[in-house]
Amino acid sequence: MPSYKLLYFNIMGLGEPIRYMLSYLGEDFEDNRINDYRKWQTQIKSKMPFGKLPLLEIDDKKVHQTIAICRYLGKKAKLVGDNDWEDLEIDIIIDTLSDFRSAIWSYFYNRDEENKKRVKEPLFNVTIPLYLGKFDNIIKVNGYLANGKLSWADIYFVAILEYFSFMIEQDIVTNYESISQLRDKIHSIPNIKKWLDKRPSTEW
Amino acid sequence: MPSYKLLYFNIMGLGEPIRYMLSYLGEDFEDNRINDYRKWQTQIKSKMPFGKLPLLEIDDKKVHQTIAICRYLGKKAKLVGDNDWEDLEIDIIIDTLSDFRSAIWSYFYNRDEENKKRVKEPLFNVTIPLYLGKFDNIIKVNGYLANGKLSWADIYFVAILEYFSFMIEQDIVTNYESISQLRDKIHSIPNIKKWLDKRPSTEW
Repeated sequence: MPSYKLLYFNIMGLGEPIRYMLSYLGEDFEDNRINDYRKWQTQIKSKMPFGKLPLLEIDDKKVHQTIAICRYLGKKAKLVGDNDWEDLEIDIIIDTLSDFRSAIWSYFYNRDEENKKRVKEPLFNVTIPLYLGKFDNIIKVNGYLANGKLSWADIYFVAILEYFSFMIEQDIVTNYESISQLRDKIHSIPNIKKWLDKRPSTEW
Repeated sequence: MPSYKLLYFNIMGLGEPIRYMLSYLGEDFEDNRINDYRKWQTQIKSKMPFGKLPLLEIDDKKVHQTIAICRYLGKKAKLVGDNDWEDLEIDIIIDTLSDFRSAIWSYFYNRDEENKKRVKEPLFNVTIPLYLGKFDNIIKVNGYLANGKLSWADIYFVAILEYFSFMIEQDIVTNYESISQLRDKIHSIPNIKKWLDKRPSTEW
C-alpha cells in the first residue's frame, strides 16, 4: 500500500475531496493542516509547485491539483466510466463545477468591497441558481451527476458542497432536494461515514 | 469515422484547442463560427448546456467543455500517458493552466475599470511571470509539459497561447524561449500545419 501525506489548511476547502477519495479507498493518510497563515505565507508557499495547496505526497512523489488527484484516485477506486465516452461525461461535469467555483471565487476572494457588491447581484440572482438548478436536475433525472451511476465526480461534488455553501452564504442542501439526496447517499457509504465521524470540525 | 461539428465564436479562444486536436487526428470538422453577438445572446446562449461555448457535436451527441473534449480526443490520438501516473502528470499541468487562465480572466473580462486597474499590477508583475516562467522551465528541462514527451497538454497549451497573449497584451513566445520552441515543434506537425494554413485569420 502506498503511503499518503496530505498538506492543506485547517479547512475543508479544496482538500476535502482528496480526503473523501482516500477515505473511500480505505487508505490511511497523514492529514497535515496548516494553522499558522503567516508561516504559510513566509516559509511554505514559495516551496509549493505553483505556490498553492493542497499538496499530496504519494510515497516520495509530490503531486498537486485537487481535481487531477481525484481523477487519479478515482481510477484506483474504479469510480471512473466504463469507456472513454463515459469518462468524457464525468469530465464535463467536473469542468462545469470548476466554472461554477471560479464564478464564486470572483466574489468570495474579492478584496475590493465596492467591486464585490457589484459582482454579488448577478452572481446570486443568475449564476448560482442557474448552475445549482441544473446540477440538481441532472441528479433528479439520473440519480447521479454522470452516466446515471456513482463516479468520482459525485464524491468530489459532495466533498466540496460545504465549501461552496460557506462561500455563497446559503446551505445548498437545504435548497436543492436532489443534491441533498446525493449528499446523503455519499455520506452513507461506510468508508466515507467513518471519515465524517472522525474528521476535525471546521466551518468550511 | 464519426462526424464532428464545432460551434464557437469567430475567434481562436477556447475553440482553438479542439480545432487543433481534430486537425491532429486528421478529422474533417464543420467549423461553425458565430459572428453575430446579439444573436448569440438572444437566440443561442439559452440553448447551450450551461449557456456557454464551445459546443461539439460528435455524430448526434452534443458535448461541451474544451478540456474534457481535448482529453477525450487525446485518448483517440494516443496522446495520453502510458499509465495512470503519467496521466496524472498531464492533468496536473492542464489544471494549472486553468488556474493561470482564471487569473487572466479576472483581469481581461473585468468590466469595472477601477477594479481592473487594481488587479493589473499584481497579475502582470507577479502571477504572469511566475506561471509562464515555470511553464517555460518545465519545457526547457523536459522538452514537453509532461512526462518528457508529446501529449495533448502540449497541443492544448500551444493552441491557447495566442488567446493568452492577446489577453495579457504581450507576445508570450517572444519572451519565453522554451515555450517558443514548443510552439514551433507543435506547429511543424504536418496535420497541425495544414490547419494553420487554412484557418481563418483572427486576432485572438
